[in-house]
Amino acid sequence: MNWKDLKKRKIDGNELVIAIAQDYEDKQVAMVAFQDKEAFDKTKKTGELWLYSTSKKKLWKKGEVSGNVMLVKQVLVDCDADAILYLVILTGGACHKGYESCFFRTIEGNVVGKKLFDPDNVY
Amino acid sequence: MNWKDLKKRKIDGNELVIAIAQDYEDKQVAMVAFQDKEAFDKTKKTGELWLYSTSKKKLWKKGEVSGNVMLVKQVLVDCDADAILYLVILTGGACHKGYESCFFRTIEGNVVGKKLFDPDNVY
Repeated sequence: MNWKDLKKRKIDGNELVIAIAQDYEDKQVAMVAFQDKEAFDKTKKTGELWLYSTSKKKLWKKGEVSGNVMLVKQVLVDCDADAILYLVILTGGACHKGYESCFFRTIEGNVVGKKLFDPDNVY
Repeated sequence: MNWKDLKKRKIDGNELVIAIAQDYEDKQVAMVAFQDKEAFDKTKKTGELWLYSTSKKKLWKKGEVSGNVMLVKQVLVDCDADAILYLVILTGGACHKGYESCFFRTIEGNVVGKKLFDPDNVY
């Protein structure tokens, strides 16, 4: 399946697919973001996760600043082909707030995730 | 955290958040979809997963036709508060194509998921 076969959604003005990163080892969902064609193709070519930042409006290699890149082990696609599930090896915290996963707190605000680094030392 | 605290994205013309359903038991990602305020509030109130269908443009209870509802055990929110991770008990296949998860195939097209029912007998 190539980029043309995926169902793009109009997200904040861009034609994107949803990209979920899940830890290949412990199955924790690490993050959810988006990909454009360039991010999709670069991920396929390099084996590292690339994304499209809707806030910065540009291609973005996950971990380009922190060094915590994500190494892609398996790529799954959902039934309506608008979302990709990347099973990845994490090389450090996924979250820019220092946590292993971006889903580090409950909806009630309780922190349940593991903190791996202090963002002030990294960004 | 309430609906007003979440960061809504403009998705196919609607103000929505991303909702991921993950199996509470085996940690498989079951599906990804979207929620509007009504779906978010009904999920909180009922303990079952409700979504907003961008194709049908309406509120949608997961499993309303198939009976395969999702029972919410834990609700996590990501760092930028635009996505919710629902840890759920599946009561049957998540996918309208009969599979346990909507992510039942690789990007190369190989089926790797478990088929639980024949959609022709359900829909």
